[in-house]
Parts: sequence; C-alpha cells; structure tokens
Amino acid sequence: MKTIHIGLLGCGTVGTGVARLLIDQRDLIAERLGAVLELKRVADIDITRDRGLALAPGVLTTDARSVIADPQIDIVVEMIGGQGVARELILGAIAAGKPVVTANKALLAVDGNAICRAADERGVDLGFEASVGGCMPIIKTLRESMVGNRIRRMTGILNGTCNYILTKIGEQGATFAEALAEAQAEGFAEADPTLDVEGHDTAHKITILSALAYGMPMNLADVYVEGISRLTPQDIRNAEEFGYRIKLLAISKDAGDAVEARVHPTMIPLENILSSVSGPVNAITVTGDAAGDVLHFGRGAGMMPTASAVVSDIVDIARNLLAGIGRRLPLLGCQPERVRPVPVLPMDELNTHYYIRIMAADRPGVLSIISGILGEHEISIKSVTQKGRKNTGPVPVVMLTHRAREAAVQQALRQITALDVIAEPPMLIRIEDENGSD
Amino acid sequence: MKTIHIGLLGCGTVGTGVARLLIDQRDLIAERLGAVLELKRVADIDITRDRGLALAPGVLTTDARSVIADPQIDIVVEMIGGQGVARELILGAIAAGKPVVTANKALLAVDGNAICRAADERGVDLGFEASVGGCMPIIKTLRESMVGNRIRRMTGILNGTCNYILTKIGEQGATFAEALAEAQAEGFAEADPTLDVEGHDTAHKITILSALAYGMPMNLADVYVEGISRLTPQDIRNAEEFGYRIKLLAISKDAGDAVEARVHPTMIPLENILSSVSGPVNAITVTGDAAGDVLHFGRGAGMMPTASAVVSDIVDIARNLLAGIGRRLPLLGCQPERVRPVPVLPMDELNTHYYIRIMAADRPGVLSIISGILGEHEISIKSVTQKGRKNTGPVPVVMLTHRAREAAVQQALRQITALDVIAEPPMLIRIEDENGSD
Repeated sequence: MKTIHIGLLGCGTVGTGVARLLIDQRDLIAERLGAVLELKRVADIDITRDRGLALAPGVLTTDARSVIADPQIDIVVEMIGGQGVARELILGAIAAGKPVVTANKALLAVDGNAICRAADERGVDLGFEASVGGCMPIIKTLRESMVGNRIRRMTGILNGTCNYILTKIGEQGATFAEALAEAQAEGFAEADPTLDVEGHDTAHKITILSALAYGMPMNLADVYVEGISRLTPQDIRNAEEFGYRIKLLAISKDAGDAVEARVHPTMIPLENILSSVSGPVNAITVTGDAAGDVLHFGRGAGMMPTASAVVSDIVDIARNLLAGIGRRLPLLGCQPERVRPVPVLPMDELNTHYYIRIMAADRPGVLSIISGILGEHEISIKSVTQKGRKNTGPVPVVMLTHRAREAAVQQALRQITALDVIAEPPMLIRIEDENGSD
Repeated sequence: MKTIHIGLLGCGTVGTGVARLLIDQRDLIAERLGAVLELKRVADIDITRDRGLALAPGVLTTDARSVIADPQIDIVVEMIGGQGVARELILGAIAAGKPVVTANKALLAVDGNAICRAADERGVDLGFEASVGGCMPIIKTLRESMVGNRIRRMTGILNGTCNYILTKIGEQGATFAEALAEAQAEGFAEADPTLDVEGHDTAHKITILSALAYGMPMNLADVYVEGISRLTPQDIRNAEEFGYRIKLLAISKDAGDAVEARVHPTMIPLENILSSVSGPVNAITVTGDAAGDVLHFGRGAGMMPTASAVVSDIVDIARNLLAGIGRRLPLLGCQPERVRPVPVLPMDELNTHYYIRIMAADRPGVLSIISGILGEHEISIKSVTQKGRKNTGPVPVVMLTHRAREAAVQQALRQITALDVIAEPPMLIRIEDENGSD
C-alpha cells in the first residue's frame, strides 16, 4: 500500500486533533483511501508539552521551514493560525510545489486572493474546508454539490460563541456580560472575545463563502459587520413575542449586479429552522436556483470537529496525488481566469424590515413625534407597542417596520436620537423574513 | 474549451430537469468546470411530447441502446427508474466502459452489489448522489467529508411524502387517509403511495447509506421496515404531550459487531432539530466519532432538486475525465477488497424506549392486569396515562417504558391483545432519545 507523508505545522488544539485522527484512524482511512497517511513531521514552538500523541522520535521539530523543505513531505497542513508566520509558511509550501491544507479563515479573508493566485500559478492544491463551519462540509457543498446552481442566497450562523451567548440570553434572561462570562467559563469563548462577539470571525467566513458562491475575489473590506454586544434580554424577549428569534447571521445574496454581504444581529421567524439552532453550533442555509434551500448544521469549532474537516481535505488531496493529478477543482469555485469582482451593495441601499426599540420619556405626544419623523423618511410602521409603564423613567417604544431603505432608517434614527425625550440611542435590528410581506 | 458529451436515458420529470439544467446553466457550469457539458443524446420512449426543452434535431431518440453504443458519449445518465431496463442499460454502459450517473435507489438497494462489482471490474465510475436525499449531498458527505470518522449513527427523514403527511396530521389533526389524499392532491404523493407510506423507499435509502457508512455490501433484506399508515392523530397528540414528535425515521447504528438498520415511525424529543423538519423535505443527522452530529436538510425529491444532485455527479465525473483518470473514489466508501458483510442486528434484540397505546375496556383492574403482564416480561413503565373517559367504549391507556428488549415487548403485547378487555391491537411506537435515561 502506498504512503502519503503529511507535515503538520502547529500543534495546538486543532493541530493535535488532526494528529490524533491521523494516528487513531490510520487503518480506517487506509481502507477508504487505499493508501496510508503517515504523519511524518510535526512542527511547533513547544516540543516538550505532552499532547497525548504517540509520535516517533524525530517527528517533532521546532523548525517549520525544514518541514516544508523536506522532499519527502507530500502535503503541508498549516494549523498555526494568525496572519504572520502562517502566511509565510503557506506561501513557502506553495512555492515548493506542495499542496496545503489550512483552517485559517482570518488569513484567507484578508490574503486569500494572493494565496490563491500563488497556488494557481504553481498549480498546487489548497484545501480550506475547515476554515468555515468546522465539520459542516459547506465549502464542498458550494464548490461541488451545488455546481449546477446559481447561488441566490446564504444565511448562516457561523460563530458558535455568539450562538451560545444568544441562546443563554434567550433561555435564562441573562445579560450579554453574564452570558459571555458563562461562555468563557465553559470554554466556548476566548479570553478576548472581540473577534467573535463583534462579528469579525463571521465576516471572515462569509467573505470566503461569497467568493465561492459568486466566483468573485475575497472582499472582506466591503462586508458590513455589527456584533451582538449591544443586545439586551429585552430585545430577545420582544423578538419572541413578535414570532422571531435573534441570531448573529451572516447574509450573502445575489442582488443582480451586486451582492449583499453583511453580518449583524438578525431577527428570523420561528418557522425558519435556523431559529431552532441552539448552543455553540453552526448552521447555514444555501439557496440555489435548482436545489432550493440546502441546510447544513454541525459543530463549527472545537478540536475534533475541525480536525475532521482538515482530514477530509488531506484525503481529497491525497486522492489527487495517488491519481497523479495536481488538482481537480478551481480554488474559488470557478476557473481562475473567470473570477471577477462583483460590487458589494452599499449598506445604505439595503431594503428590508426593521425592529426598532426607542427608550423615550413617558409623555403624551412622544409616539406622535417619533412616528412623524419615521413618516417623513417614508418608513411605514407595521406594529408598535409601548411597554411596561411601571416606573417614572423612560419606557421602551418597540416598532416593526414595513420594508424600508437603510439610509432612510439611519437618518430617521439620528433625528429621533437628538430629541430631548429620548434617553439613549435606539436599538435597530434587521429582520430577515423571506416570506414576509412588504 | 473542451466538451464532455452526455447521453441521457429517460426524459421524465427528473430527466427533463437534468436536461434543463445542462442547457440553461451551460455557461455557468463551464465557468466552474472549465469544459462544456453537451447534452448530445436523449433517449425516451416518448419523443413527441413537448418538454419545453430546446434540443437540436437528432438529439432525441427512442433507442437507448444506441446512446450507450455511441462512441462520442462520455457519460451516461440513467433517469428511467425501475429495475428492469434501467439495470440492463446501466450494466451495458459499464460494459462499454462508460461512467454512469443514476438516481435509482430501488435498483441500487436491490442490485447495487452486482452493479458496483461490474463497475469495479471495468474501473468505471458510478455516481448516485441523487439516489438519497435529493439535493442534500449526503453521499458526498459520508464518502468524502467524514472520511476521517468512524460513523456511529445516522437518523434520517428520507421520504418527503411521509413527512408531509405526518406534518398535516400533526398540524390539522387530519387522519392518515385525509392527509394522504391532500398529499396526492398537492403532488407530494403518488397515485399508488405504498412504496412511500409503507417505508420501502426509506429502506432503499438507508440500505445505500449503511453500505457507505460501514463499508458493507447493500443489504436491503435485513432492514426492518414499518410504515406510517396505522398512525392516528391521537398518537401524534399524545407524543407532543410527552415532549416528542413522530417522524418516519431511518435509523442506522454501529452496534459493535453488528449494525442496526431499521425504518419505522419514531418518537423523537422536541429538542432534536429533526423534530422541527416539517413538510415535504428530507433531513439526516450523521454522527461521526470526530465530527459529532452533522445535519443536512433539503428537498429530497422533485424535478430540480434531484437534477441538481445529478448534475453534481456529472460534473464530478467530468472533472475526472478531464484529468485523465478513471475514477477517484471507491463506490462504497472503502476500497472494494475491504468491503465486508456486517450482520444487521435482529429486531428482537433491539433495546430501546417504547410508547404503547392500548385501547382497553374502562373497568377497574384493567391497568393492573396490563402492567402485570409488562412486569412479567421485565418491561418497566416510566409513565402511564388513562385518557378521555367520556364515553362508554374502550379508553386509551398510554404508556412510556424504560429501556426494554423488543422481543419481550412484542411477547407482552401479544398476551395483552389476547385479553378480552382489549378492543384492538395495541399501537407501539419506538422512541429515539439519545439523551434519554434508562
């Protein structure tokens, strides 16, 4: 039986998971692949730590460059993360003609175009299934399974930390800070959670998926990003009363000559199956013109789920090597010479439904002033509720709007915020309801 | 740009969908594949019917054999269905060295081993993504994305007709007959619905998935099959009261030296996301030892969703042809020489929780007799309710059991049925609750 030699760069959590899978499932993978995947070299800055891996002497090294340079290494697996040394090593491996597998979404979202160009020029393969959605095979689905579809829309819960926090707020009435602390205690949030809770991690992922879906270059700069840290238990309760649940959604749509690409807290109807996705998991619905809605759901992060996706890429590339072919699939879904920029729709031009919560003084005439301003901006109100008038402080005025233009809504809210009867900046949550009326 | 020539056998609903996709998305597919897929020949017994397809003169023929024999045809797509001529044409194409794409689950479940053997001997590819789950890429996920996982369990809603009917009964309190009639009126059920509602179609599909998951031959004969036609609105309401929903589930599990493979109405907890899957769709959760639960959801049937899956297979095979390789993946997931029979656990040995509804005379002591019989068979009752005592007829005694052996449950129910206080054979529904206690 043939042997394919793997060089692993970075042996942290996911790297260790990959090593464990390659060692523990060696026979199972060989039965399926028809060749043995041999973990030949593992590079990490710390080679003394016990990772519970049975590695032969000489496998571990601190010298990642020597792994890339090793002529026996067939596939390089980058599990270092970050955008410095990881970028250099990936480009180094590509320059050496070695196929690369990575889960590095931040690097791909920022530098993916240059990396893909380098891989295209050298004709080597680059696997990045694990960069989005952990074990959910969303990259494969977009690039292979939906190859006969024009992609109309993607709506995804792509950050398990945020989904865990929103689930906690919803189920326990916890504040954002309490839910975050709980997520950190349970290992579902980093010590510095900014990248996750402010939506940037989700933006990295939708950047990658949009490129694949629409045959366009990665364009992180134009993705609108808004996190979940301002959400209150009250908003989540209000949403439920209107028949919605709030999720941090990545939304990407074919909008004719442009695409929508945005990340923000979003109200989705309780009938939408994404609203049933609870806890630290990911889920995405991809809508194709032929297939209709195809949903994937699974663990979006964590040692073994991510390792599972990395190993699927390794095996895919190994099959190509065994067949004697360089690569089979264009990296960004369509042939490199056909990848072309598609503008991202400016957020001002978005046209959707909105939830608006305004904390206003409990005085006669306030609602009339607020609705007057909205009317001036051609924003028509679908329903309005004035909540809890128990105390003498400001009371929440909660509104759902019919379809309106984002620019108009923002202008109106600026005007409303400036009123002296308004206690704090209003809360604005966009609604995603494909079946919703105008 | 290169051209790959497609020969389509059978131009009914799905065949027409495939033709339409190949024609309408020709440029899109070419951008992604780097070659043109040309629908060169279409064989059907009826070549006069207008299918709304712009086919060049000479493309349509009644002679399917001439399509297979045409040396210019690169890929044969079998969309005839059934087990007679379809089988002969598939084997004919394979013998001619041509790769085949099919959606024919019934044929594969029954004759898949012989067909795979023929394809293995000839070294040609066989695509069958569309045979299970329509547009859900479940075959690709099992064979490629979860290649590093030992598959622990699969639980799926694999028949949209049944799921539509069960949703109607649940939402409207309709009887099975009423819901079936509605499904037929809406085009979600065949005139003869037996294959669907009695579970056989689902059994075909889980046979195929079990082979892929466990590296075993197709073994339809040993799959336990029970349909939904005996279910009543009352059972569905009772299930909801206990926190469950009833679905026709295909269940396949790694049970150590054997596998479970069974199709029957199943109660699943409302927290299980499969319980939220409503209407004529499919969904499946695959549990891998590394990935954990991975769920797919989508249209499991219909013209364009199925065509989408067929086209993904065509493109996969086309990529291999363009790369000059025969095939890249073993048909049943593991290398042909490693496929080995795994026994299916006899149903008598199943150990699970049960819902039992017994229609008994409303007399003192009846519950004591029933629970006595259950106790004799070591079946312990978790909860029992005696429902609606409004009339003088038999009243339902509804019980949930702790884990029990199927053989014991069946024996006990036979004894209970024989009692003169029992009005009709009891209703038995198995419960699937991974988090359930003993």
